[in-house]
Parts: sequence; C-alpha cells; structure tokens
Amino acid sequence: MNGLSIEIILLQIFTLFVLAKVAGLICERFKVSSVIGEIFAGIIVANTILFSALQLDVDISLFEILAELGVIFLLFAVGLETPFSELRKVGDTATKVAILGVILPFLAGFAMFMIIDNNLNEALFIGAAMVATSVGITARVISDMNVTRTLESRIIVGAAVIDDVLGMIVLAIVMGIAAGSSGGILDIILISLEAVLFVVLVILLGSILLPKLRKRLDKRRKPKSTIHCGDRKKASISPLPLAIIVCLGLAVLATVAGLAAIIGAFLAGMVFAEFKDKWPCEKDFGPINDFLVPFFFLHVGMLVNIESFSGVLGIAIILTLLAVVTKWVGCGLGARKMGRESSNIVGIGMIPRGEVGIIIAAIGVGAAFISEELFSVVVFMSMATTIIAPPLLEWAFRRKMKADGICGISDNSSTGKK
Amino acid sequence: MNGLSIEIILLQIFTLFVLAKVAGLICERFKVSSVIGEIFAGIIVANTILFSALQLDVDISLFEILAELGVIFLLFAVGLETPFSELRKVGDTATKVAILGVILPFLAGFAMFMIIDNNLNEALFIGAAMVATSVGITARVISDMNVTRTLESRIIVGAAVIDDVLGMIVLAIVMGIAAGSSGGILDIILISLEAVLFVVLVILLGSILLPKLRKRLDKRRKPKSTIHCGDRKKASISPLPLAIIVCLGLAVLATVAGLAAIIGAFLAGMVFAEFKDKWPCEKDFGPINDFLVPFFFLHVGMLVNIESFSGVLGIAIILTLLAVVTKWVGCGLGARKMGRESSNIVGIGMIPRGEVGIIIAAIGVGAAFISEELFSVVVFMSMATTIIAPPLLEWAFRRKMKADGICGISDNSSTGKK
Repeated sequence: MNGLSIEIILLQIFTLFVLAKVAGLICERFKVSSVIGEIFAGIIVANTILFSALQLDVDISLFEILAELGVIFLLFAVGLETPFSELRKVGDTATKVAILGVILPFLAGFAMFMIIDNNLNEALFIGAAMVATSVGITARVISDMNVTRTLESRIIVGAAVIDDVLGMIVLAIVMGIAAGSSGGILDIILISLEAVLFVVLVILLGSILLPKLRKRLDKRRKPKSTIHCGDRKKASISPLPLAIIVCLGLAVLATVAGLAAIIGAFLAGMVFAEFKDKWPCEKDFGPINDFLVPFFFLHVGMLVNIESFSGVLGIAIILTLLAVVTKWVGCGLGARKMGRESSNIVGIGMIPRGEVGIIIAAIGVGAAFISEELFSVVVFMSMATTIIAPPLLEWAFRRKMKADGICGISDNSSTGKK
Repeated sequence: MNGLSIEIILLQIFTLFVLAKVAGLICERFKVSSVIGEIFAGIIVANTILFSALQLDVDISLFEILAELGVIFLLFAVGLETPFSELRKVGDTATKVAILGVILPFLAGFAMFMIIDNNLNEALFIGAAMVATSVGITARVISDMNVTRTLESRIIVGAAVIDDVLGMIVLAIVMGIAAGSSGGILDIILISLEAVLFVVLVILLGSILLPKLRKRLDKRRKPKSTIHCGDRKKASISPLPLAIIVCLGLAVLATVAGLAAIIGAFLAGMVFAEFKDKWPCEKDFGPINDFLVPFFFLHVGMLVNIESFSGVLGIAIILTLLAVVTKWVGCGLGARKMGRESSNIVGIGMIPRGEVGIIIAAIGVGAAFISEELFSVVVFMSMATTIIAPPLLEWAFRRKMKADGICGISDNSSTGKK
C-alpha cells in the first residue's frame, strides 16, 4: 500500500458513509431527496477541517474509485429499468429532446463568454461543459419517487443517453477546433461514427449474442438436477457475477471508444433488461448500490470549493441561470407533443450537469484552454443545476399527478374523498 | 486522481474480476473450492506479463482497498452466522483449541530458526507469524459446503477469533522483546487487557445498547403507517446501511485498539446475528460479497512471488510442513473430546494462515528483524497452508459425514438405497 495505511482508509470510508447516510436521513425527514443530503455532506467534508483530519488531502483516489464504481453500478441499475424494446418506442421524442437540449445550452454558454472575454477557445469549452446531462442525479430522484416506469422518466433517461453521446461529440469537435488541428470535417465525422457505432454494436450483440448464450446454458443446466452426497452449493454462472462482468466490460469498452464509462454501464443494463425473466439481478444490485452510490454523491459535493467562488460568484450565477433555462426550454420544446405538464417534467429532468460538465471543464483546464477560475465557475454551475433539479423535478411530477388526478397507490383506497 | 487514470483502474477491476470468476468456475468443475481458483488467478496475474500490462506495478492500492473491504464484509457475514449466545456454548472447547493452536506452532517456528540461524529476534518473528489463523479461507469453504451451522464450523470460527486476539498479543510480546523494550511484564499485561477489553465491550454494548435502540425505533415506526399522495419510498433506517456502519465502525475501532480490522467486522456480525429477526441483512451482504470477496483472494494470490522462492524453497517447505502439522495436532488435541472425526475437522480448519502471517512478517521486515528472503518463506508458508487447507477440509467433512451416515439433504429421499 503506497500512501495511506489501511486503518486511515477504513476510517475515511466509515466516516464518509456515516455522514452521507445521516445527512440523507435528515433531508428525507424534511421531504427533500437524500441525494441533496449526500452532496451537502460532501461539501461539508471538503470545506471544513474534516478534509485534512481524515487525511483526504493526502490521498483521495481510493475514495474516488468507490465513487466511480457507484455511478457505474447506478447507471447499470437505471439501464435495467429501460429495455431496448421500450426505448425504441420513446426514441423519436427522446432524440428531439436531446438535440434541442444540446444546441440551446451550447449556444448560450458560447455566446456569454464570447461577450465577456472574446476568447474563442474558452467560449467553446464553456459551451461544451453546458451540454451533457448527468442522468445519475435524475435517475436517483426518479427511483426514490417510484416513477421509473412513467413515459417521462424513460424519455429523460433515453434523451440523457443520446445527450451524453452528443456531448462527447461536441467535446471532440471543440477540442479539435481549440487545438487548431488539421483534422477538420473528417475527424469530426470519424469521432461521431465511432460513438454511434458503439451504441449500435452493443444493441446488436446484446440482442443476438446473449440470447444464444442463454439457450446454450439452458441446455447444460437441465441434466444436473440430482444432488449428490456432500455436494457444495452450485455457483455455476449466477446472474450477478455475469451482470457485473458485462457492466464493467462495457464500461471499459466505452472508455476505449472515447465515451464516458457510465454510457457503457447504462447500455449493459439495457441489455440485461431484455433477459430480466431469466437472469434477474435488480434485487442484487440494490445492496451493492446502497453501499457504493453514496460515495458518488459525496464525491460530487466534495468537488465544490466554497472559497474559490468569491471572485466569480456573479458570473457563476448567471451561467447557472442560463444552464437551467436553456435545458428546460430546449428539452421542453423537444417534448412539447407530450403536453405541457409532461414536457415540463422532461425539461427539468435534463437540467442536472453533475460530473460530466466538470469532466469537460477539467479537460479544458488541463489543456490550458480555460483558467482555474473559470473551472470553478463550471463546477458551481454543475453543482447548482444538480442541487436545483431534484426538488424542481419532484414539484413537476406532483403537478402532473394532480393534473391527471393520479395520486399513487394510496389513492385507490381514498377515492371517496374526491 | 493521482497516479492512474480511471480508465486503467476500471480495466484492472474488470480483468481481475473476470479472471477470478473464470478460475473459480474451472475449479468448481473439478470439484475444487472456487477459492483456490481465485488465489491461482492472483498468482498468475502477479507472476506474468499481466501484472505490468494492467499497470498494477504502477499502483496496486486501489485494488487492495477492494480486497480489504472484501475480507471485512466476508468476516461480517461469517459473524452473522455466529450469534454470541451460540458461541458461549462452544466457548470452552474453542478456547482450548485456540490456545494449543497458538503454543505449538509458535514453539515449532521459534525452535526451527533458533537451530538454523541462532538469531533470537528472527526466530521470535517467524514463531509469531506461525500463530494466527486466517478464518477467511476456512469460512468461505465452510459456506460453500453449506456446513456453517455444524458444531465443528462454529468451534473453528470461535477458535479463530480467540486465535487472532492471541496472535496479536503474541505479536505485541515479540515486538516488545525484539525491540529490547523496558516495558516488560506490565506492557504485556496492558496489551492483553486491551484486546480482551475490546471483545468484552463489544459484547456488552451489542447486547445492551442495540436492544434499546431497537425498542425506540419500534415505537417511532408505528404511527407512520399511512401513505400520502406522491410519497417517495420510505428509506428511514434500513438494516443494510446500519449493518455497514456498525461493521465498518467496529473494524475501525479494532484497528484503533491495535487489533486486525477483521476482528471488529466479525464481532459486528455477531452483534447483528442477535437481531436477525428484526434486522435481516444476510441476503443483502450476499451480492456485496459476490462482488468484493474475489478481490481478497486475488490479493492473497498476488502476494506470491514465484521467482524469489528459488533460493529458500527447502526451508519454506519444511516450515510449511511444521505449520500444517503443529496446527493440525495442536488444535486437534484441543478438540479431542469431540471425537476423532470432529477434532480432525477442527485441526484442519485452523491450518490456513492467509494474510495474518504475512502481515506479521511484513512488520518484522519493516523493523529489520527478519530478512526479505525470510519474508518470502513466510509468504510461501502462509499461501501453502491456505491452499492446502480447503481440499483437506472438504475431505475431513466428507469423512465425518460418511462416518455419521449423514449425506446432506438428498439423503432423505434416497434412504431406501442403504
């Protein structure tokens, strides 16, 4: 073990997990999503003496890998709720939502910084950081509210997937222009093709290769039904290890293809959703995510450095407002056929930028295209949209429920009141 | 993230998990415990080009934390199967098994190296490394064979806990003598008291504090039974996060008390076992352990460096034989009242040294009391005992089953054959 001793790392994991769960419980008591509590626990840890007391300033990477595994398994679980067959039904609207939700925020961010600084590269990177939706936050709120199977939820998740792919393409284009590369149109087309190819390949393999494997396993399993003396429990290929392998494998493949790991994990979940009857693993991912996912939201919160915002707070607030309004309006317009209440939900569901905006800004800082101060601005925007979205989303869902006269399960027993 | 990129780390985790599961499946096909497959996967990774190809030579610490979490949660799960109330019944025999299983191996290791090198400190450390039983391996084999609830299993696990405490005391004494400290008897007594105090405190708190918390929660939960319009799923205090918090908390406390983290995790499991009816969490730990535990056994395998053994292979084999025989005979003698077959099982179940022996040897190397070559010898002994034990244990259990005429569940339907 290089760096910290195992005792310190255990203390870090224990303390962070307790803080996240306690903050989450407090938020739930006040009818706020526990996600916000977990993010605030992260902010508190990062901006108080706790950070150095836990020696997180010495080495934070062990905690970061738990956060990354958490968001990967979370996206897999979200994918499990979204079989390809169902996504195809919402594909048209989701595509419109995604495209409008990419163009408007990009233009807003780009225009704002062309006006402020008249710096092309800077404006391009801020625009790119405005694009990608972090489906993680929305997915958790949706799951907590028990509305995963609504049409709006599936469009949001579907659009966020297309959005992520578009966001990566925008990033690739922006990096190409900023670096003044000679590639031009050909490079852009190649990168776009790669992203589309990845998604298509996963769909094809997931719908052809896996069913074949399934049939072969079915044949093998049958003759072995007799139990012999002293036999140990049969492990063979149980659904969970297979699901973990496919999830991690596609996450790795996605990074190889230049996409975010969570896109691969999400697609893996979608593949498994088609085999839910044969290989049920939703219940198994529950406990794993109960342990790992809080670390992701803690990590999101820990990226907020309150001090560094003082000088750029005004710019940060304006950018945040632009980020909220452009996604809301852009995605809402894309979903306008669904009616006012539903397009409202979709628009709000696409607001959170989360870690994706930060990752893009980090690339910009690393290549010296944007300053560290502007990085703080993007972090603030990503965090603010992430914190704002859940209560707005709950409000939008309840508004729709009231408009529809649908009030969840409890309503069946209380219809006499109306 | 300092060091490796997230892409490389995901690739490491994915590849290692796949190798462990595939090797485990191959072993199970040949009726060998999957533990051995997972350890061999680790040996293969550490001693081939795979190690540097996966960039594990650059940074292995992220993988190590998964291994450590794996063994901690594994020991918690083992503890869950061992309530205090039941351990008390086997306490007498388990204590005898542990004490004899500490004295004989220590004397054998000490005597062997006094004869070879006539170096007191060296002999003391080798003796100490011979002492501690790694219950992790045995626990997994026991769990795979579905014999966790047998008297022999509970005595092995109970003795291994006492053994770990005794091992830590032996280590403290040895370090005291080797450092030529002035502390003498008083220090030894203080350290012993601390270890005993920790276990007693956990028992007291676990049997007094938790039941009170339980009653208070019961009172609060009742009035909230009505479901309101649009309410999200109630999270409140579910058993799993609470179990994780108690498990990690006691693991941290154990390290603070100078004991191994796994002792705390095991005691936490024992505490939770008393509340199984109210807070069931065995099923939730299954998926978490399916994911994390293979990393522990991979890690055990990766500690084996085949090349460094060439010069000291003879010594390593003799030490291994001594380690096997002294534990087998010592612990078997401690359990002799249980009959020949059962004491045979207990003796074999205590053979694996696993990571505990290696940790002790690493402390010896760090303080320059033993050479790096001797460290390799201890690693070989720990690994060899760990690899030898599972098949021997299966053989011993089957022998007992045949002697008793008990042949598992399937026998009820095939009694006509006998």
